[in-house]
Amino acid sequence: MNGCVFCRIVSGDLPSYKVYEDEGTLAFLDIHPVSPGHTLVIPKSSTAENIFDVSPEDWAATTETARKVAHALEKALGADGVNIMMNNRSHAGQVIYHPHIHVIPRYKGDGLQLWKHKDYKDGEAESLKEKISALL
Amino acid sequence: MNGCVFCRIVSGDLPSYKVYEDEGTLAFLDIHPVSPGHTLVIPKSSTAENIFDVSPEDWAATTETARKVAHALEKALGADGVNIMMNNRSHAGQVIYHPHIHVIPRYKGDGLQLWKHKDYKDGEAESLKEKISALL
Repeated sequence: MNGCVFCRIVSGDLPSYKVYEDEGTLAFLDIHPVSPGHTLVIPKSSTAENIFDVSPEDWAATTETARKVAHALEKALGADGVNIMMNNRSHAGQVIYHPHIHVIPRYKGDGLQLWKHKDYKDGEAESLKEKISALL
Repeated sequence: MNGCVFCRIVSGDLPSYKVYEDEGTLAFLDIHPVSPGHTLVIPKSSTAENIFDVSPEDWAATTETARKVAHALEKALGADGVNIMMNNRSHAGQVIYHPHIHVIPRYKGDGLQLWKHKDYKDGEAESLKEKISALL
């Protein structure tokens, strides 16, 4: 038996508030939302955990469904904006190990605050740029 | 003259710490990072503001580059995870009106905290599901 909660939602073994489904993806309400209408978009395939092992094909399908869901949330709920979020690995806040994109409607005065931005020290950005670009 | 900061980075009119570039997309360090190596991924096209008007083609190319960048950040910087974020419209925290995906490396003990999740009241989730799915 596959214990992954999202796989069990895909199979129908667990109920969900489904808002969209197509051949490769499923979108349903996060039952513990950060704002009303907070939706999760997942690939139906159960072969990956997060962005580090999701196939390019499943990633393309999942991000395209997330784009459509963002449009629907704004129109259906009168949201004033939308955040896209995805947490990959436990230190990034991932709890369920099935790739999932959060599409979060935002409302004026909802009180959600983004993380604070900082500044780089001299030379720090150059050093990071070199390390990252070497792998791309 | 196009005043969009990211369009000026694409054209080379403004400098950036570029980590990746291909035909349709560009990735460069956010100069005010929430964590070291925080990277922005954008479509080079200047025709859209955010997820609500980006073309499906530019969205696919931008999300695919974000996937590749996530892999590179983990390997290049020894990150313990990655968050993907995108802010769409001012009430979601958008400041620059050119579509951009944040790829944020996370490190053990970095102190960043995600938004708190809540619970729905009775009937609230069903009502939202109906409104959203009607547009999908």
